[in-house]
Amino acid sequence: MDAEATTTTSEAWADVTPEAARRLVVAAVEAFAERGYHATTTRDIAGRAGMSPAALYIHYKTKEELLYQISRVGHLRSLALLEAARDAGGTPAERLAAAVRSFVRWHAEHHTTGRVVQYELGALAADHYTEIVALRRRSEAVIREVISAGVDSGDFDVPDVSGTTLAVLSLCIDVARWFNPGGRRTPDEIGGLYADLVLRMVGQEGRRDR
Amino acid sequence: MDAEATTTTSEAWADVTPEAARRLVVAAVEAFAERGYHATTTRDIAGRAGMSPAALYIHYKTKEELLYQISRVGHLRSLALLEAARDAGGTPAERLAAAVRSFVRWHAEHHTTGRVVQYELGALAADHYTEIVALRRRSEAVIREVISAGVDSGDFDVPDVSGTTLAVLSLCIDVARWFNPGGRRTPDEIGGLYADLVLRMVGQEGRRDR
Repeated sequence: MDAEATTTTSEAWADVTPEAARRLVVAAVEAFAERGYHATTTRDIAGRAGMSPAALYIHYKTKEELLYQISRVGHLRSLALLEAARDAGGTPAERLAAAVRSFVRWHAEHHTTGRVVQYELGALAADHYTEIVALRRRSEAVIREVISAGVDSGDFDVPDVSGTTLAVLSLCIDVARWFNPGGRRTPDEIGGLYADLVLRMVGQEGRRDR
Repeated sequence: MDAEATTTTSEAWADVTPEAARRLVVAAVEAFAERGYHATTTRDIAGRAGMSPAALYIHYKTKEELLYQISRVGHLRSLALLEAARDAGGTPAERLAAAVRSFVRWHAEHHTTGRVVQYELGALAADHYTEIVALRRRSEAVIREVISAGVDSGDFDVPDVSGTTLAVLSLCIDVARWFNPGGRRTPDEIGGLYADLVLRMVGQEGRRDR
């Protein structure tokens, strides 16, 4: 268990009720992150949550339902951050920088959840997979909209909007893979660095005259 | 099994001999990618390779030795590509673009191996983990060197060299997570797109006068 589990877990899963269901989600994230989805049993998860397998079954009929709940809440949360940045006032550059900063911070602070959500996507049932992919497309659409707004206004210079959108999302999401809470950069610092780099990618910054 | 397994596997593992050991490595990559390291047994791997568990044992004493072999060969291969780009002639921009192009292509073409290598790092034994982390530091050092050369020559404008190095590597590595051989971009096209984006990140491109 690392810093995420002890400091940000209850806040991250506040939407999951009742409290017993929330405890099971937290336990499942830890177990999936440590051993992988397929090597984890519902018995392992119930044990970590201090509950019996029968008590788990009241809230989640299968291990896959837990994975789906984790993926859904995680994707909804990070999508809401992107939408808030898109809908805030300001120039396209300000909105893109805000979107990147908050999306990166989320993936750093919730890196254990982020890893589970990204790595175990293939273990979702077909209907759940379809739903999660739709949420991912909405996140992609938000970034694409903000980049397109900057292109339309003449603020950005982007030859390949969909490719650049893909790269921006990928850069932010991969923070969950490598982020180390004991490392030298805080989630905020990485967010600031990445916002600057993304503004350069869209041709907004780094064009100082010499 | 996707396109990687059928088209590029034998080439990727050509350094692994004898042929039986190579078959086991290929089988282990597939099994780890499908079910995760912890949910895979040496019996599963031997079965996929059409061998008995006893025959597997001749080549690899443990499942961890297979993971270590996969990680070591994968890291050595991608490091060699980066070093070749660094050591080729040309301007810092040409060398950085070449490094990004070949590193991205590797992660797209070998995305299954890339995922296993990235996701299961924590399952390596302590001494093997230390060795792999040292190879990763060497890859990072190559990118940092090329970026620093561009800063020194005045070609690049990079306020945070180590942060930018981290972002460039992360962007390239994450291609292994999302690359889909049936998708609309080829490994080459992604390599070209990413080389352009990285040149913008270092302040080399996207500064057209208006």
